[in-house]
Amino acid sequence: MILLFTDFGLDGPYQGQMKAVLAAAAPAIPCIDLMADAPACRPQEAAYLLAALLPECPPGGVVLAVVDPGVGSSRPALAARIGGRWLVGPGNGLFDPLARRFGVEDCFEIIPEPGARLSASFHGRDLFAPAAARLALGRLHDWRRRDYPFQSGWPDDLASILYIDHYGNAMTGLRAAILPEQSRLAVGGQVLERARTFSDHPPGQAFWYENSCGLAEITVNQGRADRGLGLAIGQSVAVIPC
Amino acid sequence: MILLFTDFGLDGPYQGQMKAVLAAAAPAIPCIDLMADAPACRPQEAAYLLAALLPECPPGGVVLAVVDPGVGSSRPALAARIGGRWLVGPGNGLFDPLARRFGVEDCFEIIPEPGARLSASFHGRDLFAPAAARLALGRLHDWRRRDYPFQSGWPDDLASILYIDHYGNAMTGLRAAILPEQSRLAVGGQVLERARTFSDHPPGQAFWYENSCGLAEITVNQGRADRGLGLAIGQSVAVIPC
Amino acid sequence: MILLFTDFGLDGPYQGQMKAVLAAAAPAIPCIDLMADAPACRPQEAAYLLAALLPECPPGGVVLAVVDPGVGSSRPALAARIGGRWLVGPGNGLFDPLARRFGVEDCFEIIPEPGARLSASFHGRDLFAPAAARLALGRLHDWRRRDYPFQSGWPDDLASILYIDHYGNAMTGLRAAILPEQSRLAVGGQVLERARTFSDHPPGQAFWYENSCGLAEITVNQGRADRGLGLAIGQSVAVIPC
Repeated sequence: MILLFTDFGLDGPYQGQMKAVLAAAAPAIPCIDLMADAPACRPQEAAYLLAALLPECPPGGVVLAVVDPGVGSSRPALAARIGGRWLVGPGNGLFDPLARRFGVEDCFEIIPEPGARLSASFHGRDLFAPAAARLALGRLHDWRRRDYPFQSGWPDDLASILYIDHYGNAMTGLRAAILPEQSRLAVGGQVLERARTFSDHPPGQAFWYENSCGLAEITVNQGRADRGLGLAIGQSVAVIPC
Repeated sequence: MILLFTDFGLDGPYQGQMKAVLAAAAPAIPCIDLMADAPACRPQEAAYLLAALLPECPPGGVVLAVVDPGVGSSRPALAARIGGRWLVGPGNGLFDPLARRFGVEDCFEIIPEPGARLSASFHGRDLFAPAAARLALGRLHDWRRRDYPFQSGWPDDLASILYIDHYGNAMTGLRAAILPEQSRLAVGGQVLERARTFSDHPPGQAFWYENSCGLAEITVNQGRADRGLGLAIGQSVAVIPC
Repeated sequence: MILLFTDFGLDGPYQGQMKAVLAAAAPAIPCIDLMADAPACRPQEAAYLLAALLPECPPGGVVLAVVDPGVGSSRPALAARIGGRWLVGPGNGLFDPLARRFGVEDCFEIIPEPGARLSASFHGRDLFAPAAARLALGRLHDWRRRDYPFQSGWPDDLASILYIDHYGNAMTGLRAAILPEQSRLAVGGQVLERARTFSDHPPGQAFWYENSCGLAEITVNQGRADRGLGLAIGQSVAVIPC
């Protein structure tokens, strides 16, 4: 299985071109859009989201992750083995939370194949997808082994909004399991209590709960938390422990 | 083939996590997003839409349908055989119109596998997708056979708007074949004639026609019916027989 | 591989129904959404976009392309072999730029299979998808060979906006390789210089560059070109050669 995690959007021609490259190189391997609307051009928020999603997915497979505002700059192109999977993508921190939580088993800098075309703006299609297909097929490569390039100063959990889904719920980068049981979250001028289920709170009231990938998520029962609280990706969240 | 019919949206991480579970359990079985923007949190409108779409799809296969605002409540989790296919999803009426039109050949209440994790908010990933994969593989199970739990009082056809597509056309829950030939539809303060094709009516004029899945659909030639007539999902439609 | 290029949108039930037909007829052949938001009801803009995208995709495979505002009219239904691939879709110009650039190796008018249902509004599902599946399986057919029906007066390159992506960048129908090196583009009352990479220009400034499929694309570094310049699909672009 190849899991795609990108900010390209499903609309437009980008995700499709990557999948055409993957299907041509590895036609028998299922290719899944895990998420194509990762936080756009925000590798840090995307990294904490990927770190929450991936442990919920079946083990194994190759992850092709591209949130890469620095395409064409000097950031390295990586294939890293973390938590029993290969992850392929830019070395801009996108795999850092996973690397910190699971450890790095192996790491290579991807080198374009001889004679391959490499556009200035679409390394997802031209560099990362061919590399992911090779790893999914178990093929040998002559990439250069290297240390995993950690970003400096990134926290264990990110006290920010990572993603707002189409119901208007806002995922934070805080794992619910590390928060004290009665923690409240302060965001957008409001202090939110924790709830076990959606039906614990009356319609229209905002609260937070542990979502299906283990993150603290802010929601409004039968309403939109993003509009009600004025939430946006990247916005800070404060934990009030008791 | 596994056909997905959900209100999760293709954006976000929900549809992708379900497909990762399906691809891990049944990698050789094609998995199709029949529709990921079914009427959100509206099992009744979704049910009449599914009942129109499914007979247009190739026979066989498993349908994994999740429009489930009551996740975590006491609604049963069902695997029902209807019209020669297995349908997997919540027992909240989502399969009722199909069950009434084709009859129920078999029905089970799905029981989580021993030791399986079951999140409070994402039964699509944790309960329904594993069950659909098992049925698609023809594997035996030890679920409990039960009667199909019909909702009370649901009509044969639903005189409401079910869905508005990205062209602005509005599908109703009325099968065109059951309407008298010269029927008109009253909606949003207007009375609409029937047309055979889009070109029967001048640009800008609203009318209704039999769409490609047999439903009465409201449209404006070269315009948007939803904006022109102020249409929304759930809105009532009245039939004027002659 | 079957590549889908349509204006149906990924939302709604259209793309899914086509893929269900393809998966039933050819379950082992990967089916890729190359693009489902091609310029809606605009076969000319869609044609120049398809002609730019397809040479970037791996060779071979079948292309199922449907941008077909004239469905139900007298436009022919085509299967044309161009550039080593089969292309299936309406004969409304959608394959003209490809046919002019690569030549037409073979061309058939598709005839519905005996007894097949053919809805008035959804030939993508009822006519084109079954034909594409047959070609992908290499099956013989008894379609009628015919000349490729070129539209009259279409240019080699289209000096218009073809598509606006979700970052707000605007693709034109002009191949960068045919433009003089120092060309500027005039659009929306502004004259834009060429840049090599996004980082050549300060944030907020508009420019054009050669995008990853070889087209001249208008962009604003860290901004939205569509809003900043008031761009829309179909809008004219003028080339200022030096």
